[in-house]
Amino acid sequence: KSSKLPNIPNSIFSIMSKMAAEHNAINLSQGFPNFPSDSKLNDLASEAMREGFNQYAPMAGDFELRMEISKKIEKLHSRFYNPESEITITAGATQAIFTIIATTISKDDEVIVFTPAYDCYAPTVELFGGKIVPIQLKPPFYTVDWTEVADKISSNTKMIIINSPHNPSGMLFSEEDMLELQKLAEIHDLLVLSDEVYEHIIFDGNIHQSASKYETLANRSFITASFGKTFHNTGWKMGYCAAPAYLMKEFQKVHQFNVFCVNHPFQKAFATYLKNANHYLNLSNFYQQKRDFFLNVMEGSKFKIVPSKGTYFQMLDFSDISNENDIAFAERLTKEYKVATIPTSVFNKDGADYKQIRVCFAKTEETLAEAATILKEFS
Amino acid sequence: KSSKLPNIPNSIFSIMSKMAAEHNAINLSQGFPNFPSDSKLNDLASEAMREGFNQYAPMAGDFELRMEISKKIEKLHSRFYNPESEITITAGATQAIFTIIATTISKDDEVIVFTPAYDCYAPTVELFGGKIVPIQLKPPFYTVDWTEVADKISSNTKMIIINSPHNPSGMLFSEEDMLELQKLAEIHDLLVLSDEVYEHIIFDGNIHQSASKYETLANRSFITASFGKTFHNTGWKMGYCAAPAYLMKEFQKVHQFNVFCVNHPFQKAFATYLKNANHYLNLSNFYQQKRDFFLNVMEGSKFKIVPSKGTYFQMLDFSDISNENDIAFAERLTKEYKVATIPTSVFNKDGADYKQIRVCFAKTEETLAEAATILKEFS
Ligand SMILES: CSCCC(=O)C(=O)O
Ligand SMILES: CSCCC(=O)C(=O)O
Repeated sequence: KSSKLPNIPNSIFSIMSKMAAEHNAINLSQGFPNFPSDSKLNDLASEAMREGFNQYAPMAGDFELRMEISKKIEKLHSRFYNPESEITITAGATQAIFTIIATTISKDDEVIVFTPAYDCYAPTVELFGGKIVPIQLKPPFYTVDWTEVADKISSNTKMIIINSPHNPSGMLFSEEDMLELQKLAEIHDLLVLSDEVYEHIIFDGNIHQSASKYETLANRSFITASFGKTFHNTGWKMGYCAAPAYLMKEFQKVHQFNVFCVNHPFQKAFATYLKNANHYLNLSNFYQQKRDFFLNVMEGSKFKIVPSKGTYFQMLDFSDISNENDIAFAERLTKEYKVATIPTSVFNKDGADYKQIRVCFAKTEETLAEAATILKEFS
Repeated sequence: KSSKLPNIPNSIFSIMSKMAAEHNAINLSQGFPNFPSDSKLNDLASEAMREGFNQYAPMAGDFELRMEISKKIEKLHSRFYNPESEITITAGATQAIFTIIATTISKDDEVIVFTPAYDCYAPTVELFGGKIVPIQLKPPFYTVDWTEVADKISSNTKMIIINSPHNPSGMLFSEEDMLELQKLAEIHDLLVLSDEVYEHIIFDGNIHQSASKYETLANRSFITASFGKTFHNTGWKMGYCAAPAYLMKEFQKVHQFNVFCVNHPFQKAFATYLKNANHYLNLSNFYQQKRDFFLNVMEGSKFKIVPSKGTYFQMLDFSDISNENDIAFAERLTKEYKVATIPTSVFNKDGADYKQIRVCFAKTEETLAEAATILKEFS
């Protein structure tokens, strides 16, 4: 039998984390914290198991948890999502993204994606017969040219995928960006997938521009978010999707046959935790300190750095250090210097190489300092 | 925007569990135990969280857990699946089934399914443009006519989906069935999806005929299984897929972009638990006692019953009680008599109605006795 999917590569995150482990390198590649999550959350999960929440959750998710999410979005962005019909708990944001695309994209539908782009969008769109229309954001500032977006919209365009705060660049969409997007989506009757997994990690007093804040945009948007990124437990694989009822109804048609429902005890733990904590309100400060610490210990290095505005990622431009392509450079850095990073050409169309590697600074200061000492050896 | 999926209904399990809750009925509909799982497993999950296994697991799953599964399959069915390349941990068997179909089925591929069939197969095949070719198994014995199967195979046939022990009927494939299947799959170069989630629940001294036991069959099969069904914690949403490396490589291309990986602490819990327990070896006895208890308390009822040979389900034929269609009957039973069951016509092509409802006997004796008392009111 021939492969249905001959061109799908292994995820770069698996590749680099494996290479890091094999070469005993500091792992700044795959995005995850190397410090513990709140032990209170662990206790709540243990309690949920003891209390017997070990059988199927409702398909859309634990109702209390959906209520807490609804309340949070309303408080932060003044839009009410009905927990009955407009929120579904997912096995991480990745499962939400896959399910959104499965729900909406058919053969020959075009999907606009801003590159560099998180690596699951394109293969998933293509799995359902859709076509990616990439729009390149160029370093150092990764801003969007909305005229170019307008030019690339065709009668086949079905959806625009956005991701702000943006992985891997750390850029943010501004209010103007959102208004341009809203206008184009309205004119051309497009759906929007807004990947907001780093929603609570925003620096320098900037404000997160959630699609849920813009009324007519929200009316045509699937929003996806992640508990793992906010609560330091990426391995719990919990996230959610919020969308207006007419879209959520479609989403659940696929969700119910993809995973049926998701882990019950963790849903209970998050429901109780969210009732009693506004942890996410401090997350920007927490990670801004890490970003600043990292920028500080990198002072004097030959990497060119434009500070990240959000996410727990920072781009490092190595064009003053080497002419190698970024994959070769990242590989050498891992194997010889023992620091694993992500080469970002894998996120660009046709592997366009801007000599940028991505580091994750969701690490202890000790790890960041140790990595910086090595990275400065290039000076 | 028009719906991409106009014809997909809500899962019958959501519908009936909701109806059960609303009418305060005994819930024998959706399949899940109403007794606790081993508290040692809960403790192991808590320990894994405390030990810090809260970040992403490897994409294919925790390696120790994959090793334990490999060892189990080798011990029971004498086939070695390489834990490096032939086993992937999934967010329940449903996610495995969805991913297998996503990996293999393209437009116009035909997939043979034995009906009554678990409700996720058909919509998932259709989502990927495939066509279901149903073969009806008829009560009371639900046996397969392999001549009919041979007749229904065409040049477009890509896959056969089997499910033994069979949900909802409780029938088992025999060794002869497996050999017929193996022969046809070989002649016509077909893939096989073997849904073995009730593998450890087999009654009356019968033996589970895993596809992994039949060498050339296993060479073209994806096998899927469930921890939830075996360890009484369906809400943990953990399962796995086993397949030869050339198929598993394809599976992982989709898996990595569907969920990336699955819940880490629960994987650790199962890995440790499996090392120290052969819980599954006693499961058949455990559930046979429940089946027999239920048959016993149902003595004298007007339902016609052919004892289930496996799974935790039992079919009840109500043709001596009512002419209603099974959906109306199940609804009335829930609302007026306060016992929720599953009408099985939803599992048949075109809703063919054999006047059978399904009950789940993964319940305490108290619950089963209480339900039987009500069901016998029809006598
Ligand atoms: C799902 S593994 C990748 C984690 C992540 O979001 C990233 O590193 O960009
Ligand atoms: C995924 S909910 C349905 C549980 C089950 O396997 C069944 O009741 O048949």
